[in-house]
Amino acid sequence: VASPKPRPAASSSPAGEDRAIGRLTQIMGRAAGPRPAGDLWIGDDAAVVDAAGQRLVLATDAAVAGVHADLAVVGLDDLGWKGLTAAVSDLGAMGAVPRWALVTFGLPPRTDLDRLAGGVAEASVAWACPVVGGDLTTADQVVVSVSVVGLLDGPRPAVTRAGAVGGDTLVVTGPLGASAAGLRWLRAGVSDGPLVSAHRRPPARLAAGQVARAADATAMIDVSDGFSLDLHRLADASGVGFVLDDLPVAEGATTDDALGGGEDYELIIATGDPDALAAALAAAGLPAPFVLGRCVDDPAVRRLGRDDLPRLGWEHPIG
Amino acid sequence: VASPKPRPAASSSPAGEDRAIGRLTQIMGRAAGPRPAGDLWIGDDAAVVDAAGQRLVLATDAAVAGVHADLAVVGLDDLGWKGLTAAVSDLGAMGAVPRWALVTFGLPPRTDLDRLAGGVAEASVAWACPVVGGDLTTADQVVVSVSVVGLLDGPRPAVTRAGAVGGDTLVVTGPLGASAAGLRWLRAGVSDGPLVSAHRRPPARLAAGQVARAADATAMIDVSDGFSLDLHRLADASGVGFVLDDLPVAEGATTDDALGGGEDYELIIATGDPDALAAALAAAGLPAPFVLGRCVDDPAVRRLGRDDLPRLGWEHPIG
Repeated sequence: VASPKPRPAASSSPAGEDRAIGRLTQIMGRAAGPRPAGDLWIGDDAAVVDAAGQRLVLATDAAVAGVHADLAVVGLDDLGWKGLTAAVSDLGAMGAVPRWALVTFGLPPRTDLDRLAGGVAEASVAWACPVVGGDLTTADQVVVSVSVVGLLDGPRPAVTRAGAVGGDTLVVTGPLGASAAGLRWLRAGVSDGPLVSAHRRPPARLAAGQVARAADATAMIDVSDGFSLDLHRLADASGVGFVLDDLPVAEGATTDDALGGGEDYELIIATGDPDALAAALAAAGLPAPFVLGRCVDDPAVRRLGRDDLPRLGWEHPIG
Repeated sequence: VASPKPRPAASSSPAGEDRAIGRLTQIMGRAAGPRPAGDLWIGDDAAVVDAAGQRLVLATDAAVAGVHADLAVVGLDDLGWKGLTAAVSDLGAMGAVPRWALVTFGLPPRTDLDRLAGGVAEASVAWACPVVGGDLTTADQVVVSVSVVGLLDGPRPAVTRAGAVGGDTLVVTGPLGASAAGLRWLRAGVSDGPLVSAHRRPPARLAAGQVARAADATAMIDVSDGFSLDLHRLADASGVGFVLDDLPVAEGATTDDALGGGEDYELIIATGDPDALAAALAAAGLPAPFVLGRCVDDPAVRRLGRDDLPRLGWEHPIG
């Protein structure tokens, strides 16, 4: 988000955006009629549907100038990168393999389309997810809306947000807060370094998500709106609480950056067998996960150390 | 489009938007590497990809307040309807069956999300294409970006814009210009009637597209940006010219409405066997198609009666 100001909300109840998503789920669900068994629709990182025996994983995400990118300090190519990367990250958080992307560009007059599309194209190469179609429209601000279609290797189900149980270990794939710290550096006039890179060109942890699915992760979500908010969402969906012992803060970032900055796109993973998960990640040549703590049965318990963990993060002021 | 002013461009060369799409095709194509045989990527109404033996047809379309809908005279529900309908119409124009939709809403503060989403939901019922996922973001103007995934019944290929040959008959599934005329009525204070309905709730000719594919149509496109412009696009893609004898103008619409108004979502179909197509449509209980004329070998010939047919229609002023 362009202005990562952690906004604490009541610790146990979702705020505007999550309420609006709940409302949309009702409206669309009522219209759609019964959902086929095995399908997963609105409410997780991505949807899972069955196309005559082939499971598809579908997600969409938008990057809007002034909301998701401050074009005073980052380029249109960075905005394009972020649009596609945020969408494939949603597939990664289900353990799926992104395959195809559709991109809609909303363009004010005289937008540098080559630069914007170039950033999308770079991300499509990085994540092996070609752009196979799209749409162009005029708009008052630059909008990049990306939809992605992915597949699931083998017969295992996708990893949702909803499968964690009390006793599961919670890990995260990497340190947090680098993107928010990088934005601060950019605004201070610093134009390179690892924090700036983390803000301009965040990664998607696709390989880690696929390994976690193969290693029987019970629940997973990517850190897009803020670690704390996204962890609360996983706990809400699973009906569990959590007790965190520690938090991996990126070098140069603050604890607030790590808790509420968002757009790190690291994966929060719940697992009943953390040793097996660590071994599988190591076998794939991926970094060791950071152990955060554990899930507990009581959904009202949401702690970091001795303190309650507020829902810090970005929620669009909707509804 | 909110202001359907037919804008003539040079009769034989694409203007801003089509040039920008050509540029995007280059940028994305270079990034994507080789396309699998049988796949169809950017450049047609929709993309066709192979998901482990299951062909998927993918399209995306956006409806933007002030560009695609004049909210002074139509409702947010109408904008939502149009967003989903335009996207499924792109699948219909390939002969595909829409199955799932993803919707991104860009929302200024205090937007009536229930009404906007309600229009999307109504269209999802009408076209049997449930919304299975989405995204919400703040934005300066209302944006509804819809991506749809469809399937192809049976082994036939999708019907592209590119298969017409000289001698093929050109037909259209219904009269043209009703949407543009309806907008004029709405602006004059008339709030109902068939023209107004055609503007607020345009149909998607899904059944006709599927029948045309089964009846060996050689090329097809839906009338979104303007009959004339869209017909030129079909002729460009096929490398043919055309001679039209007549044009079906909707009752109450003008010839300019019919030629350049756009958003009628009728299908222009090329066929080597117009009798078989008419019979197949009749057997499916669909209206008889209107015979426009025929394709000719010389791609420079683009005539309506004795006159050259200009590229009338809406092109976003891009690039």
